[in-house]
Amino acid sequence: MSAKEALEQQVKDQADMVRKLKAAKESKERIAEEVSKLLDLKAQLVAEDGTVAPTNVNQKFTLKTAKGTRDYSPEQMALRLSVLNKIVAVFKKHGAVTIDTPVFELKEVLTGKYGEDSKLIYDLKDQGGEILSLRYDLTVPFARYLAMNKISNIKRYHIAKVYRRDNPSMSRGRYREFYQCDFDIAGAFDPMIPDAECIKIVAEILDSLNVASYVVKVNHRLLLDGMFEACGVPLDSFRSICSAVDKLDKASWQDVKKEMVEEKGLSEAAADQIGEYVKLNGGKELVEKLLSDDKLSKNKSALEGLEAIKLLLGYCEIFHISDKVSFDLSLARGLDYYTGVIYEAVLLGDASKGEEVSVGSVAGGGRYDNLVGMFDVKNKQVPCVGVSLGVERLFAVLEQKIHAANRKVRTTEVDAYVCTAQKNLVEERLKLCNQLWEDDFKVEYSYKKNPKLLAQLQYCEENSIPFAIILGESEIKNGVVKLRNVLSREETEVKRSALADELRRRLGELNLNGTVPA
Amino acid sequence: MSAKEALEQQVKDQADMVRKLKAAKESKERIAEEVSKLLDLKAQLVAEDGTVAPTNVNQKFTLKTAKGTRDYSPEQMALRLSVLNKIVAVFKKHGAVTIDTPVFELKEVLTGKYGEDSKLIYDLKDQGGEILSLRYDLTVPFARYLAMNKISNIKRYHIAKVYRRDNPSMSRGRYREFYQCDFDIAGAFDPMIPDAECIKIVAEILDSLNVASYVVKVNHRLLLDGMFEACGVPLDSFRSICSAVDKLDKASWQDVKKEMVEEKGLSEAAADQIGEYVKLNGGKELVEKLLSDDKLSKNKSALEGLEAIKLLLGYCEIFHISDKVSFDLSLARGLDYYTGVIYEAVLLGDASKGEEVSVGSVAGGGRYDNLVGMFDVKNKQVPCVGVSLGVERLFAVLEQKIHAANRKVRTTEVDAYVCTAQKNLVEERLKLCNQLWEDDFKVEYSYKKNPKLLAQLQYCEENSIPFAIILGESEIKNGVVKLRNVLSREETEVKRSALADELRRRLGELNLNGTVPA
Repeated sequence: MSAKEALEQQVKDQADMVRKLKAAKESKERIAEEVSKLLDLKAQLVAEDGTVAPTNVNQKFTLKTAKGTRDYSPEQMALRLSVLNKIVAVFKKHGAVTIDTPVFELKEVLTGKYGEDSKLIYDLKDQGGEILSLRYDLTVPFARYLAMNKISNIKRYHIAKVYRRDNPSMSRGRYREFYQCDFDIAGAFDPMIPDAECIKIVAEILDSLNVASYVVKVNHRLLLDGMFEACGVPLDSFRSICSAVDKLDKASWQDVKKEMVEEKGLSEAAADQIGEYVKLNGGKELVEKLLSDDKLSKNKSALEGLEAIKLLLGYCEIFHISDKVSFDLSLARGLDYYTGVIYEAVLLGDASKGEEVSVGSVAGGGRYDNLVGMFDVKNKQVPCVGVSLGVERLFAVLEQKIHAANRKVRTTEVDAYVCTAQKNLVEERLKLCNQLWEDDFKVEYSYKKNPKLLAQLQYCEENSIPFAIILGESEIKNGVVKLRNVLSREETEVKRSALADELRRRLGELNLNGTVPA
Repeated sequence: MSAKEALEQQVKDQADMVRKLKAAKESKERIAEEVSKLLDLKAQLVAEDGTVAPTNVNQKFTLKTAKGTRDYSPEQMALRLSVLNKIVAVFKKHGAVTIDTPVFELKEVLTGKYGEDSKLIYDLKDQGGEILSLRYDLTVPFARYLAMNKISNIKRYHIAKVYRRDNPSMSRGRYREFYQCDFDIAGAFDPMIPDAECIKIVAEILDSLNVASYVVKVNHRLLLDGMFEACGVPLDSFRSICSAVDKLDKASWQDVKKEMVEEKGLSEAAADQIGEYVKLNGGKELVEKLLSDDKLSKNKSALEGLEAIKLLLGYCEIFHISDKVSFDLSLARGLDYYTGVIYEAVLLGDASKGEEVSVGSVAGGGRYDNLVGMFDVKNKQVPCVGVSLGVERLFAVLEQKIHAANRKVRTTEVDAYVCTAQKNLVEERLKLCNQLWEDDFKVEYSYKKNPKLLAQLQYCEENSIPFAIILGESEIKNGVVKLRNVLSREETEVKRSALADELRRRLGELNLNGTVPA
């Protein structure tokens, strides 16, 4: 079979598959995917042929973004930028610098960092040259950056997109391409001081976004390990039992216990002991109770973890965030690289409105003291602690709130729109616009030569532009303009020479600070 | 041969190749690339084996970013953000909204848009599912967005990274991953009004960045076509002769003529006629001259192009940018999709300082009325015009300027640093920091329990933090702090209750607006 024949066979098979999926009424997305492959195969066939097949002439195909990704509309961008600005303001309050890294890394940089989740990494095609993958998070590139530049001391934030070939659940704000906002402190410092600042930052951000009430759960890897040891979990099962505990936010204890006993071969007795601990959460008093717990108090690792949590909760008290922090023994977090404190911030639903108690995690992180060393030739460690905000979920919650309140998001910050009521005045409009731009106003005008006045005023209303400046022949002759308040529809005659001052004064009165309602 | 044996053979071959390259003293980059492939093959072998080979234990390999890409350090980011903020401010002045699109598109979206340059597109590996490519520019995703959402009227900016597997020349600011800042106006309007605004925007941006003197060259595709026709270029050679003309900014006329005649089979007479035209540039007077040119005035397409340029130059006069705009018949631009006016902004070197006359293009664009239709089932057109800023080159030029002026770029905006002169005061420091954060100051402190005062003050000086707030036991007892001006080293005692007001007053005096020197 020639290459061309093989390709023809593939096209035929793929077309059959599409027919079957359609007959089976599979999801639109699934069908679109297979159609897209079919078109690609056909295009290859065309390329082989050297001729252009009729199906490809107009390059018509299902117009869509890649699975699990989306465009952001101007309204979504306005909201997103306002959220990111608030987040960056908090990072800056704490003196963080920012860096950026490429969207792809040498594949080997990512290898061995994500355990089972490595299968979710996007690889680039080998087009000759290096083997590359899209970044999966911002933490591993940060560690690579530190090791490569021999930096042992930095406090940085990084806002960028990351990529995971996960099953997207867009309604719940889970995408294959999504933004992360990371804040990390690298350097050898005294225990729990930077660790506490990370929690403070999460609390300040969630307060400033005013999205919902929330709690920041904290736990410690050493305490988890000590607890497993004390309950009789074999050393080589720590990680797999830990990943079972990690599911407690989504699954019931019964299911988790079943996984431990039936899948992972843990004794029922050990599982039951773990079950007693992981239902505990609280504050300082819980730490005290566990410090005198029969089993845990005899375990070195558990004691060390408990002392650390105690110190952390003390700093949280100074930072006035004790009421937002919950020491929670069920918090485990999946990633392999954590070595100390771990965090997770969870939004709480409003029970009085019948919402679920927990609408999910919006931030997570912890201490990872060994990751940078994995990139250093001499294995030099740089202790790090940090937190990553899941902003897509925050966007989704805030979008819902705006939608529910029936609020309109402004997508521009235009101060005034220059209109004409008569024909043949395009050059006069441009002149006035230019003058206003030079005076540092944000100004628009119609790109039509002879637009209708009504259309121009409608544009102002639709785009929430506060002022219209109307020019007619008599105004030009008299050196004046009509200044119209778009909302009240009031019009005043203003001298051209006084226009800038008057406009500035009125804008000040409107107090139009920022694009988006707070 | 088993799969494992085949892999072992590959590893062996690859290792041989690396040895040969080293022996041949090939470039470090080339060798690193092949070493990287070798390590990847070895890793695969390990995966096949199920055991971990000794070479892979510590995952040591050349630590680098992918070819043609780079990290941005905090200093580079501070400059970059300040540049982008200025650019966005101009876009907002003109009422633009912003959108975002995914970093990858279905491959077929990009197919057939970039002519010869399609080979530079990065493809993703087929991991089951769709066939994807990284975006090559922001224009094609914009057109896809308009068609997909049936938008026929929008003015938007988009700042994002694009990807080209080009030969990187990092010293000249050419990377494989780089930022573009695009501004486009879509919609059916009257001739040259939005087209002129794009030039105005480029001029405002380059003025506000104050990077160097510049000129915005303009030309028109219809004029080029008419000129080719009038000079006797066969219709089917228009595009290839156009792409030869496009090289005139880098190559001499002799070389370009040679390409036309020897490679592209144009008659010497036709080439010579083109040669006469492409050396022309100027303003309105040139348009008038060409409107009465023997050959051009008889060509419909050329006349249409000239009339358009005449109108455009008129609007530029109203916008006070005539001195920045040059009508240049040698400007061609490579991309296939332009249909009307084309632009290119070029920085001019300072001849008095012995710099070259032209340090290269920093913006380019034009009108593309047919691109959106390529994505629409009914071929519905949405006329567009836009411009794309090559910000990497702007960053590079500004970095050089800062370096030459020996200026320091601040990477944070911290107002004050809370220090202690004595031991065991960490909690007091945290308390004061927390108070200052609540009062909305940007404040840092040492993460060490008992830092040395000298180290703390040094940190302030190194990071250009204007104020240090010093706490000792006696200050705490008396309810005061020492407020130290880091630059002058002057210290004043201030009551805790008056600290916020005093700090605010002093910061106002310093007039510390923004992170980066203007």
